[in-house]
Amino acid sequence: MTAEVSQKLRSDARDNRARILAVARAAFAAEGLDVPIREIARRAQVGAATVYRHFPTKEALLATAFAEPMALCSAVIEEGLAASDPWRGFCLVVERLMEVHALERGFSRAFTSRLPAAADPFTADRERALRLLVELFRRAKEAGGLRRDFVLEDFVMAMMANEGIRAETPETRAAASRRFAALMIQSFRADPEPAPLPPAVRLSLPVR
Amino acid sequence: MTAEVSQKLRSDARDNRARILAVARAAFAAEGLDVPIREIARRAQVGAATVYRHFPTKEALLATAFAEPMALCSAVIEEGLAASDPWRGFCLVVERLMEVHALERGFSRAFTSRLPAAADPFTADRERALRLLVELFRRAKEAGGLRRDFVLEDFVMAMMANEGIRAETPETRAAASRRFAALMIQSFRADPEPAPLPPAVRLSLPVR
Repeated sequence: MTAEVSQKLRSDARDNRARILAVARAAFAAEGLDVPIREIARRAQVGAATVYRHFPTKEALLATAFAEPMALCSAVIEEGLAASDPWRGFCLVVERLMEVHALERGFSRAFTSRLPAAADPFTADRERALRLLVELFRRAKEAGGLRRDFVLEDFVMAMMANEGIRAETPETRAAASRRFAALMIQSFRADPEPAPLPPAVRLSLPVR
Repeated sequence: MTAEVSQKLRSDARDNRARILAVARAAFAAEGLDVPIREIARRAQVGAATVYRHFPTKEALLATAFAEPMALCSAVIEEGLAASDPWRGFCLVVERLMEVHALERGFSRAFTSRLPAAADPFTADRERALRLLVELFRRAKEAGGLRRDFVLEDFVMAMMANEGIRAETPETRAAASRRFAALMIQSFRADPEPAPLPPAVRLSLPVR
């Protein structure tokens, strides 16, 4: 193989990889995570084997496709934990995460979906994000800002609910999420005379 | 045509109509309202002409497919308006509508989607429901229960958000909606020291 040919092959592989990722992000956003790998391959105009060569499992594909919003998510949660007022930290996390999720619908689906317990980076990062969130919730309750009966499932439910909001432009969508986040924060606030809530339920996301 | 043949034709037409409606409900719930009529025809194993014979427009199909939940919706709103305490009436409407919408996802999509302004029963019923809701909101504010900056768009946003919640069984789904409704009601409550909200935005639904 000449150097030119091998360079061309590497550059084709890079193009394929980028196209597979773009197609996967769009497909997961529009149709959820159940879109089969062979359908992603078809839309990216490559063979299924090519997809598997780059991403051996769907989780590996998710991890790479959503590496950026996942990193942003983690950074937001860490910023929230570092806030000197835990309730302000909680509010910041709800506001910022809802905005990130609003604009990356596929990521939002992936973040709130039941995934096979695999040792892939996406699941590992999500586990870590959830553990940090639980710690943030604990501190916000202790500080008296967050209602005592708030559970992680309420956060997952709020994030799923945020996914459901549709608007005609990304700007309107982001603005709607800002208002929605502010409303959810009102509902999560500790109340001197709290109204009892119906019980929380386990949703798709396995919570450990 | 013998009486038997004509009876057979009538019964086939009835079967087709029922099948088209069932297929349409499932398709709208899973994929939204953009599913083309010819795709609904394909899944119902009839020609597109047969669908158009029964339902000349997609709005006519929507109106028939969702006549039942729409009637239930209207009854709930009327019950809320009849409540002697307007804030209790408001809470009842939010709770019951979220439960109806949770279990009829296609209806929920139709209820919160922009539709061509047509003189069909679905759009007309929805217009009427929205007018009654606006009156309910006015009374609940006047009675001091509902926050003054609440707008119809907040209600639409909450209904869309409710659509986004996913659960593995209809029972879990309904239970999640009950908790979500209770949380949204907390956020809509008038507060002696209200926290200002980010501005409301126009969502898909045209509000008159």
